[in-house]
Amino acid sequence: MSSKAQVYKSQETVPAFLFDLDGTLVDSVYQHVLAWREALERVGTQLSVWRIHRRIGMSGGLLVNALLRETGHSITQTDELRLQTFHAEAYAKLAAQVRPLPGVVELLQHLSAVKVPFANATSGLIDSPRPALDLLSLNSSIPIVTRDQVRHAKPDPGSLSGLPRRQKCVGVRRLRARCSFDRDV
Amino acid sequence: MSSKAQVYKSQETVPAFLFDLDGTLVDSVYQHVLAWREALERVGTQLSVWRIHRRIGMSGGLLVNALLRETGHSITQTDELRLQTFHAEAYAKLAAQVRPLPGVVELLQHLSAVKVPFANATSGLIDSPRPALDLLSLNSSIPIVTRDQVRHAKPDPGSLSGLPRRQKCVGVRRLRARCSFDRDV
Repeated sequence: MSSKAQVYKSQETVPAFLFDLDGTLVDSVYQHVLAWREALERVGTQLSVWRIHRRIGMSGGLLVNALLRETGHSITQTDELRLQTFHAEAYAKLAAQVRPLPGVVELLQHLSAVKVPFANATSGLIDSPRPALDLLSLNSSIPIVTRDQVRHAKPDPGSLSGLPRRQKCVGVRRLRARCSFDRDV
Repeated sequence: MSSKAQVYKSQETVPAFLFDLDGTLVDSVYQHVLAWREALERVGTQLSVWRIHRRIGMSGGLLVNALLRETGHSITQTDELRLQTFHAEAYAKLAAQVRPLPGVVELLQHLSAVKVPFANATSGLIDSPRPALDLLSLNSSIPIVTRDQVRHAKPDPGSLSGLPRRQKCVGVRRLRARCSFDRDV
């Protein structure tokens, strides 16, 4: 066996984990739901909270479109950006209530201790995951793929295909990661 | 047919509605869930939000006991009262976000217009439903049965059996009401 083949074999046997953030690492879904309710209300749209909850897991853009389709509204790109801004403002007011999901901090500490690389892929925009990652006491060098770094967000697998650019950080040459999302991708 | 029988027959044909409050008339479940999370945290108990949500619909006392059984804690009556106070304080901070469920205001206005009596039975304590009822622009004479007025709360049918004392207000002698709760009673 060549030396090159041995390196590949060794790297392929290293497990790696790719985690979603909201609803997987941090218990933030209810705060996001209420923040979307407030954002929608600011543009004159009233929706029951459960209707919003069932769309959570999509990126903000897909979610806004899905919700407004339910109300029969069409939406311009400007409206979509306004809603995302309103959501971010409303979420910021609720973010202090967010906690890590039970066991997550211990799990990530264990992965770090046994040198298993992991990364985070979220449909949030750049910088938006930082407060949640701070909750988890994560090293700032943990690779993160955010919505604005991929062409399409969940449920499109774009957030996975965006990761190869960060494989060097994750530490595996071919990504054979276990993915943990709160809905199928 | 005697005059008395005619009166009974006439009164029995009047429909009446008995509505639950949270999750039935007002969209307050998520705020209650987050308020319970905060209350539990104040007594040193961390629970995922979804674990709390699945107990919503019970009265505060039953809910507190069910949640703490999950964590292996036993609870004294003093602890239970402290938790209920903490929940009320946390909920008060979130109550401004609560909205009527879509169509509810119009439904109640219609029932009033066509002289169909209705009442509210909630597992909240006395005075706690008032802000939610204010949202619905309800006449303050609408009969309300609260947790402290019955021996047992939902899912025990005590909140129904507590109503006969208020039948005179509801306007029907024998209550053959349609009940609308967010879980079976």
